[in-house]
Amino acid sequence: MPSVGVVGATGAVGGVLRSILRERGLDDVRYFASSRSAGSVLDGLPVEEATAESLEAAGVDIAFFAVGASASRKLVPHAVRGGAVAIDKSSAWRMEADVPLVVPEVNGARAAEHQGVVAVPNCSTIQLVCALKPLHDAAGLRRVRIATYQSVSGAGAAAIERLRAETVDDHDLRGDWDFDGEEFEEDAKSREETRKILELPDLPVQATCVRVPVLVGHLEAVWLETESPLSPEEAREILSAAPSVRIEEIPSPAKAAGIDEVLVGRIRRDSTVDNGLALTVAGDNLRKGAALNAVQIAELLFERAAPAHAAA
Amino acid sequence: MPSVGVVGATGAVGGVLRSILRERGLDDVRYFASSRSAGSVLDGLPVEEATAESLEAAGVDIAFFAVGASASRKLVPHAVRGGAVAIDKSSAWRMEADVPLVVPEVNGARAAEHQGVVAVPNCSTIQLVCALKPLHDAAGLRRVRIATYQSVSGAGAAAIERLRAETVDDHDLRGDWDFDGEEFEEDAKSREETRKILELPDLPVQATCVRVPVLVGHLEAVWLETESPLSPEEAREILSAAPSVRIEEIPSPAKAAGIDEVLVGRIRRDSTVDNGLALTVAGDNLRKGAALNAVQIAELLFERAAPAHAAA
Repeated sequence: MPSVGVVGATGAVGGVLRSILRERGLDDVRYFASSRSAGSVLDGLPVEEATAESLEAAGVDIAFFAVGASASRKLVPHAVRGGAVAIDKSSAWRMEADVPLVVPEVNGARAAEHQGVVAVPNCSTIQLVCALKPLHDAAGLRRVRIATYQSVSGAGAAAIERLRAETVDDHDLRGDWDFDGEEFEEDAKSREETRKILELPDLPVQATCVRVPVLVGHLEAVWLETESPLSPEEAREILSAAPSVRIEEIPSPAKAAGIDEVLVGRIRRDSTVDNGLALTVAGDNLRKGAALNAVQIAELLFERAAPAHAAA
Repeated sequence: MPSVGVVGATGAVGGVLRSILRERGLDDVRYFASSRSAGSVLDGLPVEEATAESLEAAGVDIAFFAVGASASRKLVPHAVRGGAVAIDKSSAWRMEADVPLVVPEVNGARAAEHQGVVAVPNCSTIQLVCALKPLHDAAGLRRVRIATYQSVSGAGAAAIERLRAETVDDHDLRGDWDFDGEEFEEDAKSREETRKILELPDLPVQATCVRVPVLVGHLEAVWLETESPLSPEEAREILSAAPSVRIEEIPSPAKAAGIDEVLVGRIRRDSTVDNGLALTVAGDNLRKGAALNAVQIAELLFERAAPAHAAA
């Protein structure tokens, strides 16, 4: 069993990571967090301060990073220098040419090409590509449009607390992402990451991302066009057989929360165009959208590495 | 000033109707509701029971109906027989060939063709066509897709109470509409009503409708394609000059709630297709999406009728 560090152990994704690692029976685990949380105890383990020095000295095989992009940019290189493979949830490394951006069911083979860092895609991208990849393999994607309904836990533990402190009268729909006057940074991520993961650098993708007052679970309304015709029945059959996808008549965040699969439903013809389909996708943004996907990447790497270790 | 009856005076839309009628200085007003609410007093006026007999005998010039479709189907003919023009918010009459379906800024001239009943479109359709009509006039609509984020007040006062009774942990995104195995009834309404109002019976329209835990205000993510090219800047300029539209960088339900205009923003090129635009639209579903639109229809009819009355 590899030794594991969880950096950002006290956050929303960190909490789910800890619980998935326990489910997997991993016990050589250390927790790291910012100086604010360092010194506390989680699951009977001390929380160590995440610094360049502590991470370089930790000597863990796998360092899961569930921290913001700026902390990740600063700390990840030190964990790697200390011998770890860094599996990073932030946006810091995703678009780097030498960093694989991995959803195991979609492009798992890319994980082995890492130079020390494997990036976990944005939560809304992970569930999207789980639904798109099998349809692309069957009929060739020509064009994708998505409107997102993203829960606040995607913005971290503080955003959850803010929503809990609100009354329903305060609820609104906007985006807590940078806006460049044309689109949210989140809209652009959906496009760029989907293209990189599917290895379709010119795929036309457009997203309208919106944050909704739901705690956990992202919903997406998707329109896609394919090169070859694909009926809703065929799409349903293909998706039924796809890894990590479950067909659900009307997907919703509450139905997706706490489970490992991505829910796909409301599959129908996009009657406005030839070879068009419309569907909705729901996923647990903290599990498959973050922590679970990160652990699955580690499992890919560890299983891949195991025979070599055994032979040494 | 015409005499006015408000049927369904105690509901969510009824409440906004009463307040708009007071703003307009109308004082020859009577309130009607189901037997449950009849006998109570609102704004110092008695609430009368809405029955076939009471409405036929009321003798009002205008009867606003803010009740469900089945009550509307039963009661509207009696109000009309009593001499009223019925302005109905339900879905009961909208698709009848001899019933104008009216958004005053878009197809106001149709109101005069009524045979006793004028229908108010679905809340999500009203704000959509306010944004679409000026763009259609400028460049010709070829195709429209929308994903909706609809607040619970669109489902009436009981739905508001249900949301208030929930905690954030209970929040989910689904639809409280009939589902035919392929689409929600609400998805179909968006298509059929948009086509009727814009008088484009073959316009390709597809909607994915979703209810969100917000009290008031609907948001819509819209993709549209036009016959002639239309840049985001041109669209913005056209919409700036359109009646009942206000440009807002990032529209949201909270920004739209309580105001008369429909907010349009996030206007950008749909880079996946030629002549494509993406934008979002927010509107107050109880005001422009229901009560205000109904009152504006009455004003159209009353102003139109006034000279004839004066000449008589």
